[in-house]
Amino acid sequence: MSDLKFGICPQAFWLNMEQCCWSSNETSFELDKGNCSQWFYWSEILTSSNTGTFAYIISYLFYIIWALLFAALAAGLVKMFAPYACGSGIPEIKTILSGFIIRGYLGKWTLLVKSVGIMMSVSAGLNLGKEGPMVHIASCIGNILSYLFPKYGRNEAKKREILSAAAAAGVSVAFGAPIGGVLFSLEEVSYYFPLKTLWRSFFCALVAAFVLSSINPFGNEHSVMFYVEYHRPWMFFELVPFIGLGVIGGVIATIFIKCNISWCRFRKTSILGQYPVIEVLMLTAVTAILSYPNPYTRMGTSQLIYLLFSQCDVSSNDGLCDYTNEKANIAGPGVYKAMLLLSMAFMLKLILTVFTFGIKIPCGLFIPSLAMGGITGRIVGIFMQQLAANYPHLWVFDNGCGLPGQEDCITPGLYAMVGAAAVLGGVTRMTVSLVVIMFELTGGVRYIVPLMAAVMASKWVGDALGKQGMYDAHIQLNGYPFLDSKEDIVHTALAADVMQPRRSENLNVLTQSSMSLEDIEMLLKDTEHNGFPVVVSRESQYLVGYVLRRDLLLAIENAKRTIDGLLPESLVLFTEVTQQVVPPPLKVKKILDLAPITITDQTPMETVVDMFRKLGLRQTLVTHNGRLLGVITKKDILRYIKQVDNEDPSSVLFN
Amino acid sequence: MSDLKFGICPQAFWLNMEQCCWSSNETSFELDKGNCSQWFYWSEILTSSNTGTFAYIISYLFYIIWALLFAALAAGLVKMFAPYACGSGIPEIKTILSGFIIRGYLGKWTLLVKSVGIMMSVSAGLNLGKEGPMVHIASCIGNILSYLFPKYGRNEAKKREILSAAAAAGVSVAFGAPIGGVLFSLEEVSYYFPLKTLWRSFFCALVAAFVLSSINPFGNEHSVMFYVEYHRPWMFFELVPFIGLGVIGGVIATIFIKCNISWCRFRKTSILGQYPVIEVLMLTAVTAILSYPNPYTRMGTSQLIYLLFSQCDVSSNDGLCDYTNEKANIAGPGVYKAMLLLSMAFMLKLILTVFTFGIKIPCGLFIPSLAMGGITGRIVGIFMQQLAANYPHLWVFDNGCGLPGQEDCITPGLYAMVGAAAVLGGVTRMTVSLVVIMFELTGGVRYIVPLMAAVMASKWVGDALGKQGMYDAHIQLNGYPFLDSKEDIVHTALAADVMQPRRSENLNVLTQSSMSLEDIEMLLKDTEHNGFPVVVSRESQYLVGYVLRRDLLLAIENAKRTIDGLLPESLVLFTEVTQQVVPPPLKVKKILDLAPITITDQTPMETVVDMFRKLGLRQTLVTHNGRLLGVITKKDILRYIKQVDNEDPSSVLFN
Repeated sequence: MSDLKFGICPQAFWLNMEQCCWSSNETSFELDKGNCSQWFYWSEILTSSNTGTFAYIISYLFYIIWALLFAALAAGLVKMFAPYACGSGIPEIKTILSGFIIRGYLGKWTLLVKSVGIMMSVSAGLNLGKEGPMVHIASCIGNILSYLFPKYGRNEAKKREILSAAAAAGVSVAFGAPIGGVLFSLEEVSYYFPLKTLWRSFFCALVAAFVLSSINPFGNEHSVMFYVEYHRPWMFFELVPFIGLGVIGGVIATIFIKCNISWCRFRKTSILGQYPVIEVLMLTAVTAILSYPNPYTRMGTSQLIYLLFSQCDVSSNDGLCDYTNEKANIAGPGVYKAMLLLSMAFMLKLILTVFTFGIKIPCGLFIPSLAMGGITGRIVGIFMQQLAANYPHLWVFDNGCGLPGQEDCITPGLYAMVGAAAVLGGVTRMTVSLVVIMFELTGGVRYIVPLMAAVMASKWVGDALGKQGMYDAHIQLNGYPFLDSKEDIVHTALAADVMQPRRSENLNVLTQSSMSLEDIEMLLKDTEHNGFPVVVSRESQYLVGYVLRRDLLLAIENAKRTIDGLLPESLVLFTEVTQQVVPPPLKVKKILDLAPITITDQTPMETVVDMFRKLGLRQTLVTHNGRLLGVITKKDILRYIKQVDNEDPSSVLFN
Repeated sequence: MSDLKFGICPQAFWLNMEQCCWSSNETSFELDKGNCSQWFYWSEILTSSNTGTFAYIISYLFYIIWALLFAALAAGLVKMFAPYACGSGIPEIKTILSGFIIRGYLGKWTLLVKSVGIMMSVSAGLNLGKEGPMVHIASCIGNILSYLFPKYGRNEAKKREILSAAAAAGVSVAFGAPIGGVLFSLEEVSYYFPLKTLWRSFFCALVAAFVLSSINPFGNEHSVMFYVEYHRPWMFFELVPFIGLGVIGGVIATIFIKCNISWCRFRKTSILGQYPVIEVLMLTAVTAILSYPNPYTRMGTSQLIYLLFSQCDVSSNDGLCDYTNEKANIAGPGVYKAMLLLSMAFMLKLILTVFTFGIKIPCGLFIPSLAMGGITGRIVGIFMQQLAANYPHLWVFDNGCGLPGQEDCITPGLYAMVGAAAVLGGVTRMTVSLVVIMFELTGGVRYIVPLMAAVMASKWVGDALGKQGMYDAHIQLNGYPFLDSKEDIVHTALAADVMQPRRSENLNVLTQSSMSLEDIEMLLKDTEHNGFPVVVSRESQYLVGYVLRRDLLLAIENAKRTIDGLLPESLVLFTEVTQQVVPPPLKVKKILDLAPITITDQTPMETVVDMFRKLGLRQTLVTHNGRLLGVITKKDILRYIKQVDNEDPSSVLFN
């Protein structure tokens, strides 16, 4: 479908240019069909020629029209059938895995629309990737399949294990990186990742990788996306530019995140947010118009990355490989022109991606980040290469480039790879998983130290300039109640300072054996709490247990149907009942949770937050010498953390 | 030092054969010095000849003598200076990271003796590896360095973060596998591994990998240990033998673990355990005598693995590569002879390693496991290769081997790699980390699916045949109090069933304001608990807090020195004191922990065990309606788990 923007294979319209031209044996990158006679550009069909200004304008127009068509389809589908299918989905999946429930977010309509929509939005040539959405698609499949097995479908905690494994499988197929997928799920997506989930994710990713390599969609025997093979190892002094690339990557990522978040905030509050389809169409038109003239933005982003990563050899006919002297690697005019075009492509991609990530169609940010980083890296690489070629006897090159036969000591493609990892690392703040994904993507295990150094530098710079990665920033922007397990705050408060209510006479409790049905129904009507602590008596406040509002409502409703002579003044008993009472009491001992998690009022908040994170609590009861003082809910914890961070506590959204 | 067993470089005795012969440019594997004139075998020095029976006997004798010498040094050092320096250390480090303290286990003497001892024991030619001990060495360094920073040295939890990172660095340098090291620490060693520790371990491993690649000890430009480069991708039908190798690997690993544990148990209970040095020497003598005749056991184990993994090419002169027809890969007599020798080597290694792992010198099991698996894999690989060479038109080979120019469709080296991963996976039960280590070791990212499939199969078979991996089995054998975070037991018990004491009148508590100094000193003398709950009064038993025995003893000792007129009948007050009392009371509110973790007696044991694991508790107090009923300590939890598993609870060792 991407190639439909350029032309068509009349004998078999479903083939892309490469497949269409397989018989003619001579195609290079997408922009040039070589001497293949099966494929027709739109201009060839309409004007029987592919040269000249008129043909160019025809091609240009067709490119824009197709892009708009695809974008309109994607935006329309999302708007009409599944509003949740937009974006990358990773911030929401993180929130879901932390224990929050977003109904319908992983449903079948989302799955369907996202699957079709992502094809459309990628084909439209927008600056977005398919990797994030594929994690969302895999999670939808995991969620839907889990309903086939009651053990998983009915238990939210078990279902989250499935979703963690599904996220791993999603990255596994998106990049052909099974181990990277498992680690991505561990490091970036999942909230709680025990070893058992690790092994299951591993198995899930293995099956995904196996199926992927049987289908072999990348059409190469390596079953990796951007297989590279460099002839030379890296040299020690190169660590300096590699770490430099990490720093640049961190800076680019921070600029990108800040601008994107500002724009998304503006969209939320302005009139623009009410016309998502129009926004998509306008952005697509601008993207298509600005991208077509520059060959590096016109080609698909994956192809651009492949080109940037690859090493020049005799068969390369791109301007990037126009060296005047095959041996000495002195750049020719083609290289300088390519660098200029690449710089323009970088600026364009950076600006357009800022506006693209967050629009109401499926869109991921792995591929645009890799492309931005790849361009930066390639430019730095060519600069280093020219330095080495022109001044081979500088002391830094001493043990490598000065010797005869060692002139090609700098590989610009490697710099592109390192730069790509740096920007992606800065944007997502991944470390281990990113390095593994990078070498599964490229096969470059030998370059693990450069990759690690750049990713580490990028993460540090990113953390120093702006605390959050893109996903966390979007979680905050949307106000999802996500309790970050990474943050490490110095807490000075005690549980007593955070618990609700502030004054204990306002505490809504049930007593175990002295409240009437009327009292309880009144309490249920007056309050909105999800549950109530049960105490021995109002005076003593000794804690007995905890009962959920839902269970209490059900029990009362049930009792009204089944118990004869139930009066408003009937007692509601949470205790064992032995003797006969009139009017007949409502016995509800069964619905009482006798093992609520409790803490004392003197517990430091550090411990409390830790318990909420590790045990996945929704609330805890606060006691003093056995007497109930109050309740701390997850909402209170989130509000407290916002306060500690000097942020507006009301920005967190609840249900 | 390993090469000293064979001969010497008279001009520079510290060089090994390869380094000694660098000038002569023609050496292959260690067993053959080629035409290098710098290196002298011991037989050459003594008899001026390297051929004939006499020379063979001389060499044989020297080999045994050197081996005994090295082994005696290693065993003597361990016995005299640091008994903790023996073994691999990984089971103990796992236990330490789970919260148990073994004094001196990570001290400077252990570090010193283990560093020297591991060189000796590897040089002695025993069937052991240096990888596990290097994790121990790295952890010692981490522990010792942490004392330089009070923030870490004084806080056991913080120190454990350092140890996790150190374990990652240990594997990072042992294999040149930084990412694999981080994952090894995560999957195998660490108990609690938050994302922050992940990033720190990542950084630690990065620095380790960088230093390693600056030193470049493997002397190749890939800075990986067993760099392999196969010419052909794997084919789908090969997944069947790969999974088969996984199954075989799991079986071999189970046999190995069971035999080794039986032998270790026998050693513990028999007289043998009292003469560790003699055991080491006897084992070394047997190993040397049996290993020398077979070239595959005579060479260093790392070299054997390298040989097994590598692909035959024109320059290979080992019997393994004796193919009659270069093109068709029909095996010649050399291959069959090599296979026979390899089978014998496998049996010998299996038997000797069973007796070796656990003796009182530093010894790891990565390298022997890899060697056993490599031999198995290579044999299966050659079998598959001959099948393909002789029957290229079988349907399974249809899309690969039948075509002209595709005769070398099976790579036996790849099978060796997969087999090695399978056995190591079965022995240690690693999954993700093992796959990453394997491709960092070999550079074979293309073979990730075969590796994953074999490792998964091996883990399943291993888990089915015997529940525990080698490290967990040794933890159990030694009775370390390790609370396994992987196990998933179905619990039916409640906290009330497990807590101590069984009858609440036996509960040793302090009251907050009614006990005299005399009472408390009596209680301290009569009991051995590490701490005591403090309640409002003996009658009500409402819980106030928890006080540690150590703090109480210190406070009393201090008070006796400083407070005038302190009498045995002075009250010990855990409350705020306002009015004057005579005799002067002992005010100890400060030492009272007002925030002990409590649970109710109705809490299911599943939740209790989960809280102990995730929060790293040492004890929890059990209450009912705010009244204290009893205490559950980690000891009780471990005893309970043993009972659920139908094992002897007394086998757990406590301090």
